[in-house]
Amino acid sequence: MALIGKLVICGVGLIGGSFALALRRAGQVGRVVGVGRRPEPLQRALALGVIDEVAAGWADALDGADLVLLAAPVGQMDAIMAAMAPHLRPGTVVTDAGSTKRDVIEAVHRHLSGALADVVPAHPIAGAEKSGVEAAFAELYIGRKAVLTPLPESRAAAVELVRAAWEACGARVVDMSPGEHDRVFAAVSHLPHLLAFGLVDDFARRPNAPLLFSHAAGGFRDFTRIAGSHPEMWRDICIANRVALLDELDAYLGELAHLRGLLEAGDGAGLEAVFERARRARNAWAEGLPVQAAE
Amino acid sequence: MALIGKLVICGVGLIGGSFALALRRAGQVGRVVGVGRRPEPLQRALALGVIDEVAAGWADALDGADLVLLAAPVGQMDAIMAAMAPHLRPGTVVTDAGSTKRDVIEAVHRHLSGALADVVPAHPIAGAEKSGVEAAFAELYIGRKAVLTPLPESRAAAVELVRAAWEACGARVVDMSPGEHDRVFAAVSHLPHLLAFGLVDDFARRPNAPLLFSHAAGGFRDFTRIAGSHPEMWRDICIANRVALLDELDAYLGELAHLRGLLEAGDGAGLEAVFERARRARNAWAEGLPVQAAE
Repeated sequence: MALIGKLVICGVGLIGGSFALALRRAGQVGRVVGVGRRPEPLQRALALGVIDEVAAGWADALDGADLVLLAAPVGQMDAIMAAMAPHLRPGTVVTDAGSTKRDVIEAVHRHLSGALADVVPAHPIAGAEKSGVEAAFAELYIGRKAVLTPLPESRAAAVELVRAAWEACGARVVDMSPGEHDRVFAAVSHLPHLLAFGLVDDFARRPNAPLLFSHAAGGFRDFTRIAGSHPEMWRDICIANRVALLDELDAYLGELAHLRGLLEAGDGAGLEAVFERARRARNAWAEGLPVQAAE
Repeated sequence: MALIGKLVICGVGLIGGSFALALRRAGQVGRVVGVGRRPEPLQRALALGVIDEVAAGWADALDGADLVLLAAPVGQMDAIMAAMAPHLRPGTVVTDAGSTKRDVIEAVHRHLSGALADVVPAHPIAGAEKSGVEAAFAELYIGRKAVLTPLPESRAAAVELVRAAWEACGARVVDMSPGEHDRVFAAVSHLPHLLAFGLVDDFARRPNAPLLFSHAAGGFRDFTRIAGSHPEMWRDICIANRVALLDELDAYLGELAHLRGLLEAGDGAGLEAVFERARRARNAWAEGLPVQAAE
């Protein structure tokens, strides 16, 4: 028997669409209903067979729903929860795929305070520079992490349903506190995105931009791949997580000030020590070894 | 008939080794002789068939040589040219694969001032995070650029030989002035390397480094791939090109200060405008379209 009879996806793009396709492939979902702010993506999702029907509204969507995945940019979560709240019934489990967790949980407390036992915030770590339902595919989550940040109030059966759903998608589920989640991903995800967007913008605004881009090669391509990411989604993430992201940006600016000092002084040995430490950590990580804190 | 009878490679690693393999595959080289500061890589190159013999020294290497490629880190170029100068004979063409050009040309003037007509500085744009002769392969340069920065004194036949050699490797040859080369690559190559090394080092030095790296995913992987590059090579590049690199770093620090201000002010529209401009430029570039300077 399928884990989920009726699944509701709010925001049927890469993330929500791939969740639906993965559960269907695993035989763990009966019916998939899509809901969203704009009709066009929902119609495309229907045509692609990612969802089985488009809900007429939240009342229709939530009628008999077992699980709801909110997969919209985090800046929309507040409005989405406000709209769904009047129609949510006890026993329907609500989760999300938001890239930040403290702000989503604040919205939960504002709008779904009567249903905290049914809410299990989560975040699958499966970004891609592509977006939209056309990019969705059933294998997106295989081998990726899905982070759960349950509320103190989340009931065990709700947590287990969300855990089992992500495992059915092929993800490895890990638990974190919302604060730890937001600090860790500010460092390893949100900061690199900001830095990559910034570098491309720095070049794009120059009068000699055509010359610069014409000579950019493989290093630039990889370094800036994430600058092809969805601007609205990343605007929302940066704003939602701006306290932790500012801390990370300031730590990095400290590192760059250090590197700038070494460069200005022509301190080759100092630069090589930084590069060597970085290479050792990067290579260990790439080989799947644990990375120890450097001296 | 082969373009080059006797080819001398000084520094038989990824770059020099791939040049030899590519010319051999194209049937454009007779004999390949390796020279270098340490015997072990030369013996490995010999065992791998990348070179035909190890020179006993510069006198031996340069005897009857048609073309010499200096493929060592740029910090070694001064000592290499000093060592080779007494043995260099008129008509032997000297080129290099150095990642910076103004400093290499300064060394040329210091040590090879009697042979300027035979010198054609160059730079193949084919970095890789791997290094060493084991990483060399004949196809490395196919479709890549090779930048020539001939001297005013370089004779036409020498320039044409170097051009033909890179074309035989499959590279697209472009000409630039040394100053333009160093400024452009400070931006599109040297700066991203510095930034990637810096980010990994920033994380590696933290007490919670194991936690951070354990949650790093695909975006981090691509962004930091170039932090796996050769520390000595990149130390030399940074030092050799530090004036242009400092200019680029300062421009980028200005961009980050702007982004920091937008973040601190919670200016989502401002952030989205930057991200959108960057995405448009990045996507145009990735699709091979010309990138215009943004408004």
